Amino acid sequence: MEAKKVSDNMLARLPVYLNYIKTLPKSTTNVSATKIAHALGLGEVSVRKDLAKVSKGGRCKLGYPCDELSNDIERFLGLKSNMDTIVVGRGELIQSLLRYSGFEYFGLNVVAGFDGKCTRTYGAAGEKIYPLSKMEELLKKNEVQVGVLMVSADEAQAVCDQMVACGVRAIWNFTSVHLTVPEEVVVQNESMTVSVTKLRMQMKERKEAV
Amino acid sequence: MEAKKVSDNMLARLPVYLNYIKTLPKSTTNVSATKIAHALGLGEVSVRKDLAKVSKGGRCKLGYPCDELSNDIERFLGLKSNMDTIVVGRGELIQSLLRYSGFEYFGLNVVAGFDGKCTRTYGAAGEKIYPLSKMEELLKKNEVQVGVLMVSADEAQAVCDQMVACGVRAIWNFTSVHLTVPEEVVVQNESMTVSVTKLRMQMKERKEAV
Repeated sequence: MEAKKVSDNMLARLPVYLNYIKTLPKSTTNVSATKIAHALGLGEVSVRKDLAKVSKGGRCKLGYPCDELSNDIERFLGLKSNMDTIVVGRGELIQSLLRYSGFEYFGLNVVAGFDGKCTRTYGAAGEKIYPLSKMEELLKKNEVQVGVLMVSADEAQAVCDQMVACGVRAIWNFTSVHLTVPEEVVVQNESMTVSVTKLRMQMKERKEAV
Repeated sequence: MEAKKVSDNMLARLPVYLNYIKTLPKSTTNVSATKIAHALGLGEVSVRKDLAKVSKGGRCKLGYPCDELSNDIERFLGLKSNMDTIVVGRGELIQSLLRYSGFEYFGLNVVAGFDGKCTRTYGAAGEKIYPLSKMEELLKKNEVQVGVLMVSADEAQAVCDQMVACGVRAIWNFTSVHLTVPEEVVVQNESMTVSVTKLRMQMKERKEAV
């Protein structure tokens, strides 16, 4: 993956292409950038460039074999990477998230959920929620790469420190706290506020245009 | 709000400033761009520019009154706008999300949750989940502005069409489906794949640098 040459917009388009390819009739063996661009209302040039960056399967006049292109996009996005992950947050939300196939889709294999507000383990097998005090013991057994942080702002830094101390090397931060981490740890902030604010701005513009 | 002059990066920084200001001791009456930049490890120039765009409260050498700056950021982000919202998705996930204060934080007032897989209403008062067949009836009573779409890819367009038919004018789309909507409807796509992929790319770079 050549991180430098990939824009956020391209990363956002790839799952949309993938979904489109997967909805094509089974009899469709090939798909072209032109066809994808037309179906999704996107510019042909950007679709063509995006596909060329992720797959070498394109053939003149034939386009890409659907299976190969799907696999290449999935590999590029790391959707099949299956990285062991823990999720820390509020009990009920975490339980649902553990059942939610979203993490799997992203290539994250959730091995445990933690709830900062609980003092003992609860939940059925496969969706157990542990107290934070169990993190060290559990993470000794599993080498966990990713920690998803969905706690309240006041707990965020402390839970982050605990994850790092237990060997987590990448934090997916859903809080609005600026986390301080050692140099070797990566943090990716998920700012849903950006989306909601853009939604609101678009609504306002649309209203004013009417 | 002047949508044109606001970058995604700025929108992502604003909630972080807000959170920082809220964690300052109560005795702190003023805060400067320099102090915020230093505390959050950000460039002073961008913090200064961001704050100037959202608040007129800055005074030379004094900085901004904390309360005024908090309010201005919240107003700019629309966090107090309280827009009526529905959420459509998988039952358990939706129930947790209804209890989750995240939507409130974003200024979204969730009036109902819907589950495409259920045929009758369930859940306790205040967190009731309705079948999709009830949408029209319920939305006649409440003017709902925002619809949050968290369904599987194969249901996405149909549920979106139903929301639009029921008067929803803004869709916050968590699926990877390219939605087709009438011109007056706005769609904001939430692509969490972008974040996960960037997390993975950062991890890879860090590993290669070692």
